[in-house]
Amino acid sequence: MPAEPPKPTARRTRLTPEREAELYEAVLEILREVGYDALTMDAVAARTHSSKATLYRQWKGKPELVASALRHNKPLSLADIDTGTVRGDLQAMVCRSDKDRMEKDAALMRGLQRAIHSNPDLHRALRELLIEPELAGLDAVFRRAVARGEVAADTPALDFVGHMMLGAFVSRPLVEDRPADAEYLTRYIDAVIVPALGL
Amino acid sequence: MPAEPPKPTARRTRLTPEREAELYEAVLEILREVGYDALTMDAVAARTHSSKATLYRQWKGKPELVASALRHNKPLSLADIDTGTVRGDLQAMVCRSDKDRMEKDAALMRGLQRAIHSNPDLHRALRELLIEPELAGLDAVFRRAVARGEVAADTPALDFVGHMMLGAFVSRPLVEDRPADAEYLTRYIDAVIVPALGL
Repeated sequence: MPAEPPKPTARRTRLTPEREAELYEAVLEILREVGYDALTMDAVAARTHSSKATLYRQWKGKPELVASALRHNKPLSLADIDTGTVRGDLQAMVCRSDKDRMEKDAALMRGLQRAIHSNPDLHRALRELLIEPELAGLDAVFRRAVARGEVAADTPALDFVGHMMLGAFVSRPLVEDRPADAEYLTRYIDAVIVPALGL
Repeated sequence: MPAEPPKPTARRTRLTPEREAELYEAVLEILREVGYDALTMDAVAARTHSSKATLYRQWKGKPELVASALRHNKPLSLADIDTGTVRGDLQAMVCRSDKDRMEKDAALMRGLQRAIHSNPDLHRALRELLIEPELAGLDAVFRRAVARGEVAADTPALDFVGHMMLGAFVSRPLVEDRPADAEYLTRYIDAVIVPALGL
């Protein structure tokens, strides 16, 4: 059996990915328990046996810590997906999310929607750390599709890829009163996004 | 000049459309001023010089009164629209909403989103009195389109017409941080909905 790789040297400005994942998990746990307004950096420090100084050094403050935790936990991820077709990439993105997790996340997001209205800092952090990187990932999928000639560069629907994906997510609870699961998103991709792109 | 038509006889169970419109406008005014939780039937009765008994007789309670007021004021309306094409119907629907009004409505809806989480009765009333009738109107547009042969009856996107329209609305603030206005909705209809339906 090969020897374990040496642990990365702990630097003042970097946590190990494992430690970071632990911290993020604890943040989401506390968020589910008490909501954004009642979540304190003290509670995160206590739950994770870390110092508040570490938390503030690593993240600017509570909005950034929460937004980073959500990004770490994000239900849709495009990182490392490159199946060779747009349809394959989108399906891979929605199929990796399991139903229990998505329902848990949906509850979390509903709580956060409420908090966003009274916390402009949280709103800004969510945009910068969660929504914009996701949109950039989606953009990369479609730049590749255009580059390989799968989608014509002047397809009007290319301007609305983020709107279609996010719209699919948020509209299902409104229209059908149930969360957007992988089965629904798969049907939506085939019925709406694929034909809108002329594929 | 022709004589004015006789006023409809006031019946215990019916308000005139004008009186109803006045009441709804007052409800929205109060809603914008104080929010859902602080809105009381007493305040509505005082502002509109009506009795609480009338309000309760006409609407079951506060959630139903608020949902009916929103429906009366709805930014998208399909009633009486029948231009002969799907594209024409959808464009007519979004073009009749002016920008100021939509921004005012967007602020109202954000406030209500918050209230929905803690008021299941409001949630139910909004579904029954606002969302479902709108979806039924949209459905009628597409039933006509299928009947006249404009859209094939087995087009998969027909199952997602409500999701596409509502998704266009709610996703723009998330993706672009600005409200969905008529110009944007017009582009979305042409870029996404029209090609998704194979038109």
